[in-house]
Amino acid sequence: MPRVCFLLKVRQDRLAEYRERHAAVWPEMLDALRDTGWRNYSLFLREDGLLVGYLETDDFEAAQRAMAATEVNARWQAEMAPMFEGLDGGAPDSGMTPLTEVFHLP
Amino acid sequence: MPRVCFLLKVRQDRLAEYRERHAAVWPEMLDALRDTGWRNYSLFLREDGLLVGYLETDDFEAAQRAMAATEVNARWQAEMAPMFEGLDGGAPDSGMTPLTEVFHLP
Repeated sequence: MPRVCFLLKVRQDRLAEYRERHAAVWPEMLDALRDTGWRNYSLFLREDGLLVGYLETDDFEAAQRAMAATEVNARWQAEMAPMFEGLDGGAPDSGMTPLTEVFHLP
Repeated sequence: MPRVCFLLKVRQDRLAEYRERHAAVWPEMLDALRDTGWRNYSLFLREDGLLVGYLETDDFEAAQRAMAATEVNARWQAEMAPMFEGLDGGAPDSGMTPLTEVFHLP
């Protein structure tokens, strides 16, 4: 299954809150992610706020579109948006630009 | 299996070379990674040279130690080292500091 990696930046003054929220993601948000094909999905945070997302999915654009169409995602992203830098007012999930995979060992 | 994410920085003027080398990693390097427990290991490159590593392994410190003890790794890392920024003369694999995983959905 294809692998996807994206980067975002969490604001320094919201790091603790970001961690807390992601230790207790709403069950309906987890269900929506599962239902729309997000598999083995991890978020990793560096101390300066750089956030790495990694997931496996057959078609990332389709998984993003399906997730964006859910009501719970709109509520979740609206609550997360103020914690991010440089989104120009957009939702965090609109800034998930995939990096290029240059190596893979199964 | 625990998931590990680390970041490195490839020099802008070596990006093409880095990509080429990682499209043709030596078979004995791949064998050594497999033998020392590196699983589902990907490298993702952003256009500015930021490199994201992701892998799954039971014990990352043990996997790093075992890999560092191989002869092929020493040769590989010596050839890769000049392509990286900010390693202070060290080998790239000594700069693989794991980020904190703050979320996971299986």
